[in-house]
Amino acid sequence: MKLDAEEIQSALKKLPGWVLLNDKLHREVKFKDFAEAFSFMAQAAIISERRNHHPEWLNIYNQVIIDLTSHDCKGISKRDVAWAEEINKVLSKYV
Amino acid sequence: MKLDAEEIQSALKKLPGWVLLNDKLHREVKFKDFAEAFSFMAQAAIISERRNHHPEWLNIYNQVIIDLTSHDCKGISKRDVAWAEEINKVLSKYV
Repeated sequence: MKLDAEEIQSALKKLPGWVLLNDKLHREVKFKDFAEAFSFMAQAAIISERRNHHPEWLNIYNQVIIDLTSHDCKGISKRDVAWAEEINKVLSKYV
Repeated sequence: MKLDAEEIQSALKKLPGWVLLNDKLHREVKFKDFAEAFSFMAQAAIISERRNHHPEWLNIYNQVIIDLTSHDCKGISKRDVAWAEEINKVLSKYV
């Protein structure tokens, strides 16, 4: 179910590093190098598959730019927030 | 060294699936699902690291959209063409 504006703002308070951009949860991360960036992506890929929820993400060398939305409800849902929370735990090892 | 327009057109003839877009070599690929798309990306990541030449790439579920350019010469170089040739061999297993 699509979160409303207030629920999204409330969720963002618990998601350091994330902002709302173009109606998606958005985070940009810089790693040490490509190998570290892709290591993160491999772990996030497995998490995404387990959750059956996948990001739109762009990788440019050591940068990973993530956009998250729920296509089924055409907005941001609890599934996006839960994905971002788990990914933030992974990212805390790197950045 | 930066390839000129004629050299790029000549290279593209040997690179099925690739086009010139925004002064970059560009290819969009659709896989069966996310797992297959990310399997390709893992193999391409290792090739990129071995070649010390890395793409800009976007993944959205089963889609991978690749842009290739050489930052050192601010254009398309032989290294981009060689990367695309090797990646096309990998892609021939999938698509």
